[in-house]
Amino acid sequence: MNLKEFAARIGLSQTTVSRAMSGYPEVRPETRRRVLEAAEKLGYRPNISAQRLATGRAGAIGMVFQGGGRFGPHSSEFMGGLSTRLQEDGIDILVSTVETEAEEAAAYRRLAASKRVDAVVVHTPACADARIALLQTLALPFIVHGRSTAERSFAFLDIDNFGAIETAAGYLADLGHRRIALINGDTTSTYAQDRSSGYRTTLEARGLILDPALVGHGEFTDETGFRLMQAFLALPAPPTAVIAGSMMSALGAMRAIRIAGLAVGADVSLIAHDDVFPYLSPDNLVPSVTTTQSPIRAAGERIGDMVLRLLQGEAPEALQEIWPVDFRIRGSTGPAPA
Amino acid sequence: MNLKEFAARIGLSQTTVSRAMSGYPEVRPETRRRVLEAAEKLGYRPNISAQRLATGRAGAIGMVFQGGGRFGPHSSEFMGGLSTRLQEDGIDILVSTVETEAEEAAAYRRLAASKRVDAVVVHTPACADARIALLQTLALPFIVHGRSTAERSFAFLDIDNFGAIETAAGYLADLGHRRIALINGDTTSTYAQDRSSGYRTTLEARGLILDPALVGHGEFTDETGFRLMQAFLALPAPPTAVIAGSMMSALGAMRAIRIAGLAVGADVSLIAHDDVFPYLSPDNLVPSVTTTQSPIRAAGERIGDMVLRLLQGEAPEALQEIWPVDFRIRGSTGPAPA
Repeated sequence: MNLKEFAARIGLSQTTVSRAMSGYPEVRPETRRRVLEAAEKLGYRPNISAQRLATGRAGAIGMVFQGGGRFGPHSSEFMGGLSTRLQEDGIDILVSTVETEAEEAAAYRRLAASKRVDAVVVHTPACADARIALLQTLALPFIVHGRSTAERSFAFLDIDNFGAIETAAGYLADLGHRRIALINGDTTSTYAQDRSSGYRTTLEARGLILDPALVGHGEFTDETGFRLMQAFLALPAPPTAVIAGSMMSALGAMRAIRIAGLAVGADVSLIAHDDVFPYLSPDNLVPSVTTTQSPIRAAGERIGDMVLRLLQGEAPEALQEIWPVDFRIRGSTGPAPA
Repeated sequence: MNLKEFAARIGLSQTTVSRAMSGYPEVRPETRRRVLEAAEKLGYRPNISAQRLATGRAGAIGMVFQGGGRFGPHSSEFMGGLSTRLQEDGIDILVSTVETEAEEAAAYRRLAASKRVDAVVVHTPACADARIALLQTLALPFIVHGRSTAERSFAFLDIDNFGAIETAAGYLADLGHRRIALINGDTTSTYAQDRSSGYRTTLEARGLILDPALVGHGEFTDETGFRLMQAFLALPAPPTAVIAGSMMSALGAMRAIRIAGLAVGADVSLIAHDDVFPYLSPDNLVPSVTTTQSPIRAAGERIGDMVLRLLQGEAPEALQEIWPVDFRIRGSTGPAPA
């Protein structure tokens, strides 16, 4: 049974049938249900090419990663959330990986030209992000996970990275810590710059000295956390507190503190930013870890929702969210040692 | 410039150009390079629909997940490896998530009918897996990450799960342990059944009693590891050693052992299976953890290679690999307490 026959059989137009089956929400829920039930009953299976022709929709959202190495715990949680929302509407995710920045730009051009996706999700933007600039010139809808300081006439969802570090550093200052270290992420990314600003602003407001030797950058791995923390502890005046950008860096920092014969919480206080990984809970570490917290899976789910609204015609400017970050005090923070 | 003009300009057939640009390896590498360089220079961008028409290829490999909740540390490492290999040939991954088993079957039918992917990768198969039975009836090439006890006329890559647990349990028996517990995965999956066989066979061969109370199943999370280990330790005759199916379950088991006032390695020996997560290394835990080890990222990369060979026409029977598992002795194992 082809589209024409099926549409005639259930008394609807081919366009309505195609739209209902493509998953996009231009069609009333009752109609969609009716079409899907009839398709099930009559054994009608849409020809995707014909459906695309009729709806102009690909039924997929694209994500481009620079290198398979970029797949890590953050990407799986984010994609888990994104796909949870998209699957409700039968929308797939098309994952492209590329080697270089130039190839990433080429991938977006290719996705735009080929109509294999209806929109793309851009992740970890820089302050002036070439991808955003490019996508604004292409006829390919997009949403950004994160922010860019460039002109913001695009859809985005970000967490309040400035506020997260402001809260963490403020809490440590209240506990009497004067030398607070920061293990931050990739310097070019907006999130890392926002965290850096939150750190600097708070330390200045509290009259604490900004020591560049107490700030380190790198990937969110145990290894980087360990290496940076070891360097901090080797300083003539080591820090009494540290803020780690991820649970992974926190694991490495805790290891370095322990190996130095110091106790986390008593000798060195630790606060980590927790993206909420179900298999690595701050409650389960010894000692439990004080965190700023925002589940990246929830962000993925919400971005799935926002991208569907974007495709329904909502203005990008109406699809901009900045989420506050929770603060959870646990066992890894205590008063500064006398 | 369209395909016809571009092909004429560089003096090759439209089919050769399309094949070269689609990334699939029917075309000699020199020809492919020549075509890509010319396209770059002349600014030719292929129309994907036309290209598909010419090559019959979608340029994407599919993966279907049952629920976004299935996205976790294993999936990101595997996809990282898979995409690393596929990106060399410009092939994307199309990720579909579905709610139920019935929907998963429908998704494969839809992918087969719509030609949106050229092949699919099936993960975590059961011993008698309905997905494999279905895919064998559809004209959609597939490769399995894992094994199925069903007829094996399909491509697959698996690790030697039986041998891994045989080695681990044998080593613990050599150390004098008589009560060895097992924290296993989902009971219906082949990998968990293979591990269970390796465990039973080894214990029987060593004349150790099989106590069903010492075997637990569940998801590979810290929480499940913790809960199962607490139950083992509450037994009238608790185990002196435990084998955990993943690094995540091992974290939970270690926590339960510590909370019970026991020392990992001295009071309770622990061996974990490590899929190799860059952010959670067994060397970095305290004590460091003895593991059976096989990097799941490498498996993803190899499956990328195998699926491309499958699409080039290699027989599925020639694309079957079972990888041995490494054994790394570290600080979490010691002689059974007297």
